[in-house]
Amino acid sequence: MGMRRGTNLPRMGDFNQSVILETIRRSGDGLSRIELVDATGLSAQTVTNITRRLLGDGFIAEAGRTINGPGKPRITLRLVAESRFSIGVHLDPAVITFVLLDLAGSVVRRRVVHTPTTDPRHIVDTMAQSVEELIVEADVDRDLIAGIGLAAPGPLDAEKGTVIDPPKLLGWHRVPLRSALAEATGFEVTLEKDTTAAAVGELWTGQGPADESFLFVYLGTGIGVSMVRVGEPVSGSTRNFGEIGHIIVDPEGPRCLCGSRGCVEVVCTPQAIVEQAERAGAFQDGSGVAAGDVEAVEARLTELCERAAAGEDVAVDVLRRAAGYLTMLISALTNVLDVDRVVLGGPFWARLSEVYLQEIPTLLDGRSATRAVRTLPVDGTVVGDDVGAVGAGCVVLDSVLTPRASALLLDD
Amino acid sequence: MGMRRGTNLPRMGDFNQSVILETIRRSGDGLSRIELVDATGLSAQTVTNITRRLLGDGFIAEAGRTINGPGKPRITLRLVAESRFSIGVHLDPAVITFVLLDLAGSVVRRRVVHTPTTDPRHIVDTMAQSVEELIVEADVDRDLIAGIGLAAPGPLDAEKGTVIDPPKLLGWHRVPLRSALAEATGFEVTLEKDTTAAAVGELWTGQGPADESFLFVYLGTGIGVSMVRVGEPVSGSTRNFGEIGHIIVDPEGPRCLCGSRGCVEVVCTPQAIVEQAERAGAFQDGSGVAAGDVEAVEARLTELCERAAAGEDVAVDVLRRAAGYLTMLISALTNVLDVDRVVLGGPFWARLSEVYLQEIPTLLDGRSATRAVRTLPVDGTVVGDDVGAVGAGCVVLDSVLTPRASALLLDD
Repeated sequence: MGMRRGTNLPRMGDFNQSVILETIRRSGDGLSRIELVDATGLSAQTVTNITRRLLGDGFIAEAGRTINGPGKPRITLRLVAESRFSIGVHLDPAVITFVLLDLAGSVVRRRVVHTPTTDPRHIVDTMAQSVEELIVEADVDRDLIAGIGLAAPGPLDAEKGTVIDPPKLLGWHRVPLRSALAEATGFEVTLEKDTTAAAVGELWTGQGPADESFLFVYLGTGIGVSMVRVGEPVSGSTRNFGEIGHIIVDPEGPRCLCGSRGCVEVVCTPQAIVEQAERAGAFQDGSGVAAGDVEAVEARLTELCERAAAGEDVAVDVLRRAAGYLTMLISALTNVLDVDRVVLGGPFWARLSEVYLQEIPTLLDGRSATRAVRTLPVDGTVVGDDVGAVGAGCVVLDSVLTPRASALLLDD
Repeated sequence: MGMRRGTNLPRMGDFNQSVILETIRRSGDGLSRIELVDATGLSAQTVTNITRRLLGDGFIAEAGRTINGPGKPRITLRLVAESRFSIGVHLDPAVITFVLLDLAGSVVRRRVVHTPTTDPRHIVDTMAQSVEELIVEADVDRDLIAGIGLAAPGPLDAEKGTVIDPPKLLGWHRVPLRSALAEATGFEVTLEKDTTAAAVGELWTGQGPADESFLFVYLGTGIGVSMVRVGEPVSGSTRNFGEIGHIIVDPEGPRCLCGSRGCVEVVCTPQAIVEQAERAGAFQDGSGVAAGDVEAVEARLTELCERAAAGEDVAVDVLRRAAGYLTMLISALTNVLDVDRVVLGGPFWARLSEVYLQEIPTLLDGRSATRAVRTLPVDGTVVGDDVGAVGAGCVVLDSVLTPRASALLLDD
């Protein structure tokens, strides 16, 4: 009923267990009990009790002793990556990507299939079959799999577990994707926006501090953003955080279907960049790529990036201008959201990164409302092109394993 | 060092005390112990212990008994509003507003003085003198005042406690406003952006659920936004959340100093609306109002609103178009932030509300990325024109009295 709830004392132990497991996971090489006391602020007794439980459950293991002057040697505690797994599925207009992740967030196994554009039931069957094959190939015990994370382009209907207007999947309007996949696989399924999943992937596998705040800019067939605030992904009231398609970035840009002009959707997407290159005469074949032909767009954008890398002026100019438009979007968002840094990623990032990293940081600083106080860092993602699928898998690990202060309160 | 911290057991009691005090405060008429158990999820024993402490400290009092069938009558517990106070100060380009708030968030006393534009020391002296007079007039015990909240236009340098480029306060570049006012008054001073303060005021005195998420659109001499997310104000990494001056809302709009066109700053502010009205020939006196003449702008905008209320076409047209531009901004933000509702407020709100509430909800729904899932409510603020000062006072009450889950963790 919207009232504030008191603290849930029995959950304190779970929370502190998550804190310790996360701290060990993020350390990479492992930590001793004394180092855990230091890092978490918990008492030595609490750390001893919780690590005993984690050792018993097989989540962590003792991994060597360090002798550090006189006194008892310190025993290093390390994450047992293969103690728990999750599956990430990314539904994209062109392909569906599947990954099996271990508890460290590493990709154990990966599959990519073309998205069948026909019967929705066919798509769910394809997904279930690929999930099954992934598990069999990896030879992993099904009982160790915490669930499936399913990333899809937004907006979503989180309550019904459906994707609204899925691109290239006409007729999907009322398909309860989440429950259909759960039924077909026997696993619990969490549906998440691809952009939000990507931010969770970055948070999970990145090297930033556990409590950082960043804006993630997802460059895929569509463009979206997501945000991590003080170490927690921000998903929004309806789990649709980050719809930026109709923010105006170029007052002189083309008309948009929304009635306005120069929106992100008609200026910053791969399709729009390819059209700008076509208008600039970058391609000898004067015919334009058909709208919605995802593969042709990808091929032309890849060519454009290669020619820019080889120093061709027209290609460099088009990409520089694209970086400028993207900076208009990023500055609009960072001036509102006031984050610690900006992370760029998604399937098109690797190709665009060279020009974008040259252009965006300086342009962004020039438009920053807080430049008198600080310079905003701009980084490329540490996760690869599969960030959507990896992120989806991390969403599951995250919900199982990451400490959230909100979990400390009593339920309604 | 950016590590996640364990739970701070000794703070649980403080947190639960805040939860109970907040629940009683928000109830208005008071609650019985059994109702508190229901609302907070805490045990009867915990509620009894905490309410005993709150009664002893004078924060709450017993206020009548309700007989409800057989059994013991229920004793209603009510907030003692005069048990604690705070002072809110709003530094605006034209005026400085002072309010003394009680623990219920009600304005006990209010003062407004013109902003002296000369020596910074003079301004601090004026503030200190007004604060003193407010306390004397209200005849309140200084020991019951929790501190001063100071709201100012952003961006701020939160670390140094200064306002960056304060409008109409040239030469203020290096004035540590927060510490100067603290020294001059002897009170602890919290510096906050006026927009963020306004959202806190709305949260504190509003009737929404304690855990709601909303976007607050502040219509003052400048325009800014702030956000409450799951019951907590979002202040940003550098406490500068909500700088929206250079988001493009009209591709055909006038050039902006930033190099772009049609930014909020040159389209949506009172100054910009008055200029649009002048260009539309709304004023017989053809001469334009000088840029930065805050009082002349306010007079013309007031006249425009009055003529629109009387049904004059030119005036109605100008305000409708202004509502349309503001909707471009609001939709850009709500599509990104995915909140439960939008609240409009600030010193110019009362004048603009009639036309804006007719126009904005429908236009906003047309541009909503989630309109397939829900309709986004648009409300006027429940706080009056003094929302900046009231909000600043609430920031102090909030930091003293509102439960925050983050406070449950051990310090670094």
